[in-house]
Amino acid sequence: MALSTQPYKGARDFFPEDKRLQKYLFSKLRQTVESFGYEEYDAPILEPLELYLAKSGEEIVNEQTYSFTDRGGREVVIRPEMTPTVSRMVAARRQELGYPLRWYSIPNLWRYERPQRGRLREHWQLNVDMFGVASNAAELEMITIVDAIYKNYDATPDMYTILLNSRPLINDVLLGFLALSEAQAHAVGKLIDRIHKMERNDFIAKVDAVLTPEQRAAEAVEKLLSVLDCQTTQDLPTEVKTKPSVVELEQVLTQLQASGIANARYDASLMRGFDYYTGIVFEVADTHPENNRSMMGGGRYDGLVGLFGVDPVPTVGFGLGDATLANFLELHGLLPALTVETDLYLTTVGEVDAGLVQALAARLRAAGCAVAVDISDRKLGDQLKTASKKGITYCLVVGPEELASQSYSLKNLETGDSQSVSEAELIKQLTKA
Amino acid sequence: MALSTQPYKGARDFFPEDKRLQKYLFSKLRQTVESFGYEEYDAPILEPLELYLAKSGEEIVNEQTYSFTDRGGREVVIRPEMTPTVSRMVAARRQELGYPLRWYSIPNLWRYERPQRGRLREHWQLNVDMFGVASNAAELEMITIVDAIYKNYDATPDMYTILLNSRPLINDVLLGFLALSEAQAHAVGKLIDRIHKMERNDFIAKVDAVLTPEQRAAEAVEKLLSVLDCQTTQDLPTEVKTKPSVVELEQVLTQLQASGIANARYDASLMRGFDYYTGIVFEVADTHPENNRSMMGGGRYDGLVGLFGVDPVPTVGFGLGDATLANFLELHGLLPALTVETDLYLTTVGEVDAGLVQALAARLRAAGCAVAVDISDRKLGDQLKTASKKGITYCLVVGPEELASQSYSLKNLETGDSQSVSEAELIKQLTKA
Repeated sequence: MALSTQPYKGARDFFPEDKRLQKYLFSKLRQTVESFGYEEYDAPILEPLELYLAKSGEEIVNEQTYSFTDRGGREVVIRPEMTPTVSRMVAARRQELGYPLRWYSIPNLWRYERPQRGRLREHWQLNVDMFGVASNAAELEMITIVDAIYKNYDATPDMYTILLNSRPLINDVLLGFLALSEAQAHAVGKLIDRIHKMERNDFIAKVDAVLTPEQRAAEAVEKLLSVLDCQTTQDLPTEVKTKPSVVELEQVLTQLQASGIANARYDASLMRGFDYYTGIVFEVADTHPENNRSMMGGGRYDGLVGLFGVDPVPTVGFGLGDATLANFLELHGLLPALTVETDLYLTTVGEVDAGLVQALAARLRAAGCAVAVDISDRKLGDQLKTASKKGITYCLVVGPEELASQSYSLKNLETGDSQSVSEAELIKQLTKA
Repeated sequence: MALSTQPYKGARDFFPEDKRLQKYLFSKLRQTVESFGYEEYDAPILEPLELYLAKSGEEIVNEQTYSFTDRGGREVVIRPEMTPTVSRMVAARRQELGYPLRWYSIPNLWRYERPQRGRLREHWQLNVDMFGVASNAAELEMITIVDAIYKNYDATPDMYTILLNSRPLINDVLLGFLALSEAQAHAVGKLIDRIHKMERNDFIAKVDAVLTPEQRAAEAVEKLLSVLDCQTTQDLPTEVKTKPSVVELEQVLTQLQASGIANARYDASLMRGFDYYTGIVFEVADTHPENNRSMMGGGRYDGLVGLFGVDPVPTVGFGLGDATLANFLELHGLLPALTVETDLYLTTVGEVDAGLVQALAARLRAAGCAVAVDISDRKLGDQLKTASKKGITYCLVVGPEELASQSYSLKNLETGDSQSVSEAELIKQLTKA
C-alpha cells in the first residue's frame, strides 16, 4: 500500500512559497526586536515534563501536551511554550548574565488540540523577554516593541487594539471586592479567561455555582459583572478604583499615550491562561470583524526563574504566534508579493559543453547572482515553462554559438521581452534589483 | 525541590553567543545553496512512524527514533532525518512541480543515541535535494555545491576530501564478484558501513561468519579485502573494473577534476547507512587528524518518491550537519569572531525624562541603529559594566544636560575613548560599519 503524502494532522508542510512567507515574517520580527537590543537564543524542543508541572496551568499540561517516556525512562514533553525554558536558561547563568537582560527566540511549539483557523498543533511563536527590571519601564518597553512589530508590517493603529489588565487588580477584585477564597478566585479566573467563548447566562451560572450562599446574598455575581463591564479603569467601582494595582495600570496607560501609542486600553476580562503571571498582562486584538482571536499575549512573571533554586528575577515577556500574525496581515491586505530568490534560469540549446555552461554559471554566482541551470536536456520551450512554473523572471538562453560569441539572449518571462547581452551586462542587469 | 537548569540530555541550549554562531553557519549555507537556485521548504517535526519503516534502515527505526503514540492513538516519530519527509512532499505535488526541482531545508533532527563529540540527540542538518534528473549532471551539481559550501567558509581543498562510491558498484562486488545472496550482501554491507569502527581481524571474522563453506573456499573474504583496499578504481580487480558502475563513477570523478575539484576520490569502503540509496554515494572527510568523522553524506535515491503511489522521480540529495561543520571550522581556525547585533547601549545619568530618552532611542532605531536602553536606574559604572558584559562596543551617556544641549558623550568600550557627538554624528558613526 502506498504511503500517505499528508503531513501530520494539525501541522503544516511548508512548500517553498509558504516558507518564503515565514521567512519574510520572521525577518521582520528579528529586525524589530534586534533594533531594541534583544539577542536571539534557542533551546531543545524536548524538555522534562516537570518543567511544565510547576506553573503553566493545568489544562496545558494535562490535556494539551505532547508528552511521552523516552527510551531511557525520562518523562519528556515537546515544548508547548517557551517561557519555562527561557526561565531555566536564565537560572542556569543567573550570576554571569548582564541585566537588564534582553532575549528573544522564535521556537516552534506543539499543543495537542483540535486544529482550527489560527490554532494549529505546531506553530512558531516569537518570544521576547526582559529580565531584571522590576519597574513598569519594562512593561512600557515590551508594549512599545509589540506596537513597533505591527507598524513594521505597515499596520496602522486602527487595525489593532492593545489590551491591558493586571493580575494584582484581578486579585483585588476577586479576593477583595468579591471576598472569594483563593480556590474560588482561581476557578472564577479560569471562567473569566473563557468568557468570550460562552453565553453570558452560561458564564453567570458557572460563576454562581462557585459561590457560597453568603457570597450570593452579597451579590458577588453582580459585582463581578459591574467590573467586567467597565470600559476604562475610571468606570471601576470606587472600592476597587483606589487600589495601587489600578493606579499602576493607569500610569502605564498614560505613559503609552504620551509615547504616541493611542490604541491601548484597559480590558477587564483579560486574564491570560498561564498561572505564572504576577503583574500587568496584555494582549493585542485585531479590529477586523473576521479575526476575533488574540494575536499575541504577555505580561509580568516575576516568580519563574526562582523556581530553579536561584534568586528570583523580575521578568516581563510576551509571545506572538506566526499563524495569527499571517491571518492579520492577510485580512488587512498587508502581505507583500514575495518573489523567488533565484535571479536567473540558465537554459541550454543544442550540443553545449556542459563544463563551459557550468563555468559561466559559476562566474555569475561569484558576482552575486543566484543561478539555476536547467540540466534536463529538454527542448527550450519545456525549460522556459519550468522557469515560469518556478516564478523566475529572467531566463538566459545558451547554445554553442552563444558560448562562442559570448553574447547571450536574456528573456524576461514577465514582459516577454528578449535582449542580447554580454556577461558583464547580464551581471549588471541581475544585480541592480 | 528546585527544578533542574540543565537541558534535556544530549541536546543543546543555545545561549545568544551559541545562537549567533548557528545563525552565521546557516546564513552561509543558505547563501551558497540559494546561489545555485535552491528554494527552502520545511515540514512538521512529527511524522507518522510508517514513513521510516519503508526505507531508512532498521537500526534507525528500531533503536534510535523518538517514537510514541499521540493522544489520538497515532504512532508518531520526531523526524530522525529529512529525506522521507521531502520525498513525501514532492509526491504530494508530483504533477504541479517544475523539474529539475531544487529544494533545501535546515531541519532539526532527533536520534536517541549515546551523546558524543559531533554526535548529538538533537542536531540541525542542511538537506539539499534535486528531483527529476536521471543523469550524472545531478551528482556533479550536488558535489559542486558541497565543495562551494566549504569554500564559502574559506576552507581550502587540503582541509577536506570528497569521497565517492557507488551502490551499483558495491552490488557488482558483493552479488557478482563475491557471488553473495541478497541477504548476505545486505549483512556484509552493514559490516562495511562500520569497518572503521572495528579492528580488521574483527571485520574479517564477522564477514567470514556470513559466508557459506563454498564462498569461503572461493576466498570471498580475500576478494572483498582486495576491493576494499583499492585507493582508486584503477586498482580494482579486472572483473570488477569493466562494469558500467565503475565507468560511471570514473566519469563523475573525471568531470569533477575538470571542473576544478581536485580533492575528490574513490572510497571503496564508503557505504552510507541508509537503505534507500540506488546510485553514486558521497561523503566529505576532514583531513585534520583530530576529526575523523564524516562531515556530510549523500547520494542518489531514485525510489523514494514512488513509495507514495506516484511515478518515481530520480533524485540526488545530501545532508550536512551543524555540529560536525562547527567542529571542522573550529579545528581549522575558520570561525570568525562574531559580535553582538546591538550597536549602542544607551545609559542614563541623573534625573532624566524617560520619555525623552525613549524618543531619542526611537529616532536612532528609525535611522537603522539597534539600541538597547538601560532602564535599570543604576549608577553609570554599573550600566557600563552591563554593556561590557554584553559585548556592546558603543555606549551613549545621556543626562538632563545632554538632553538639553543635544550633545552626548559616546564611549567606545573597546578603546576606552570618549567623544562628544550630536545625534546626526552618532547616527553616522553607528551606521558606517
